[in-house]
Amino acid sequence: MTNFNLSCPIPLEQYPQVLLAHGGGGKLMQQLLEKMFFPAFKTTHNIPPHDSAVLSLNTNKIAFTTDSYVIHPLFFPGGDIGSLAINGTVNDLAMSGARPLYLSVGFILEEGLPMETLWRVVQSLQKAAQIAEVQIITGDTKVVDHGKGDGIFINTAGVGIVEHNQVIAPQSVQPGDAILISGDLGRHGIAIMAVREGLEFETAIESDCAPLSTLVLEMLDAGVEIHCLRDLTRGGLASALNEIATGAGVTLKVQETAIPVAEDVQGACEILGFDPLYVANEGRLVAFIPQNSVSRALEILRSHHQQASIIGQVTGTGTGMGLVTLESRIGASRILDMLSGEQLPRIC
Amino acid sequence: MTNFNLSCPIPLEQYPQVLLAHGGGGKLMQQLLEKMFFPAFKTTHNIPPHDSAVLSLNTNKIAFTTDSYVIHPLFFPGGDIGSLAINGTVNDLAMSGARPLYLSVGFILEEGLPMETLWRVVQSLQKAAQIAEVQIITGDTKVVDHGKGDGIFINTAGVGIVEHNQVIAPQSVQPGDAILISGDLGRHGIAIMAVREGLEFETAIESDCAPLSTLVLEMLDAGVEIHCLRDLTRGGLASALNEIATGAGVTLKVQETAIPVAEDVQGACEILGFDPLYVANEGRLVAFIPQNSVSRALEILRSHHQQASIIGQVTGTGTGMGLVTLESRIGASRILDMLSGEQLPRIC
Repeated sequence: MTNFNLSCPIPLEQYPQVLLAHGGGGKLMQQLLEKMFFPAFKTTHNIPPHDSAVLSLNTNKIAFTTDSYVIHPLFFPGGDIGSLAINGTVNDLAMSGARPLYLSVGFILEEGLPMETLWRVVQSLQKAAQIAEVQIITGDTKVVDHGKGDGIFINTAGVGIVEHNQVIAPQSVQPGDAILISGDLGRHGIAIMAVREGLEFETAIESDCAPLSTLVLEMLDAGVEIHCLRDLTRGGLASALNEIATGAGVTLKVQETAIPVAEDVQGACEILGFDPLYVANEGRLVAFIPQNSVSRALEILRSHHQQASIIGQVTGTGTGMGLVTLESRIGASRILDMLSGEQLPRIC
Repeated sequence: MTNFNLSCPIPLEQYPQVLLAHGGGGKLMQQLLEKMFFPAFKTTHNIPPHDSAVLSLNTNKIAFTTDSYVIHPLFFPGGDIGSLAINGTVNDLAMSGARPLYLSVGFILEEGLPMETLWRVVQSLQKAAQIAEVQIITGDTKVVDHGKGDGIFINTAGVGIVEHNQVIAPQSVQPGDAILISGDLGRHGIAIMAVREGLEFETAIESDCAPLSTLVLEMLDAGVEIHCLRDLTRGGLASALNEIATGAGVTLKVQETAIPVAEDVQGACEILGFDPLYVANEGRLVAFIPQNSVSRALEILRSHHQQASIIGQVTGTGTGMGLVTLESRIGASRILDMLSGEQLPRIC
């Protein structure tokens, strides 16, 4: 393991802030790459820096994805833009049942960003990549004028290998499938909003930001049949269920009482006027599992998080248009629609 | 071929500008994806939208790269941020001798961006992808508050397949290698600066923005031995030569008179106080070719651009530290160093 919390490798008395020239392709950019990025993101491949990284995989079936991260604030309880940028993209790969292997990192920095802040984020990227067992293999740095960005934006793209023959996607969802979630909901969104609004709770609510790849690969290794996976990011559980119902053309029914939400998160949602079913998570997934695999899947999910639960099932093909209904605490049934407006901007 | 210049698929009277909710994971984002992005970026794979795209390649050796594009202005003679975002990443893949196949597109949009502008860029991305024979296979959209971005930033990451066994990289460069460039220099940087400074020339100088993959694949197919390739973007020819000289630990010698620069570009450089050797290009490469392959390589480069030229050669291993010397028009020799400051911010 690499040492963290090292002092910034760029001399801060000389360059306390990021300058436009740090993205200009000249000497200052070269210094940033050679002193900060290359040592931090050193890979076991030892690929010399070049325009693209050439990789030999042990299979020719890959998963490929990308996400940009514009979260505000950059640092929050339970994570920061660096760990989020690794875990978010790792999780998108994991949702295809892929083994995440390689990530790219593209920075868009705002002129005037404290160099120390960049260094903290770089260390966080490095640490999160180690934990998720992925390598940062290629990257890019741009700097925009002060007032034309917001500190740091990060894009990560990811490549993973697919070592199974299941089609893990909405079109595989079948009537009868159980709907499982991997833990309690709403931590990430509420952690961010609490910081933004300056709210204090008895105990700080921490983001659930974490890689989900181990959990998915364990299910696949155990022979669990998986029809569909989705991580519950922007738009939360409600949006994920609606997207899958629409993609699969099926009707889903979920029980509100079966959906775990921690008491402090529930309380914060009430104060802030949010519905936890729409709040973003960064370390939770929903899984569509045929009945013959449910008990094994739940056992594995619970070994990672005690509150993993079966929350409902696919009830039919309905009109083929996709519909999600929620059975509430008092037994009434209502349609759980997609979010129409904007609940939490810049949550990821 | 798809029709271009179609009218914007998002109703402009209702949504004349991009709103925060277009990146919020709810209904408005879904509308943007389904009406604009999915039809524009429709692939032959017909992969249903999911967290990541699963791809079966015909080899397990891949190239992987990324770049973010923050160019200002968004539209310029000879291109725009859309064509640039495709060609820039295609070219990075081509510099490993890879066949570019799949691209991701990550948008960071500023709240208030005219929807029509986004639509123009999306059409340009689509058109450039068709020309470069790559498919946009996965993507992401974020919207940041007004004043926290600058219209549109785009990240593209790319995956290509490597179908040859050459190691095309700085460490393959050898004393005796000829140094070739694929055309005249400085068009992209000068085209951008002319727009920014409001300069008018007799004929508009257009960016050289173009994909270089065909050219590279033709050389490989013809059995040309290639030691190293680099596209001449930020920092121009001078920076590329310095990076390769350092990476290879060799001494390079180039002749100023052999480097083609168009008269109007030269004139503009003199007005603006730039050295064309440091000005960015987006459709030019430098190639390091062993003597036995030079004539074949030059023939192929010239079939694409008449001004492709041999500009110098690798003279020795020197101190192992990397050194580039330029023989000037009057026969004097000077060190061609990397750019130290910032010549042209936000050129790509």
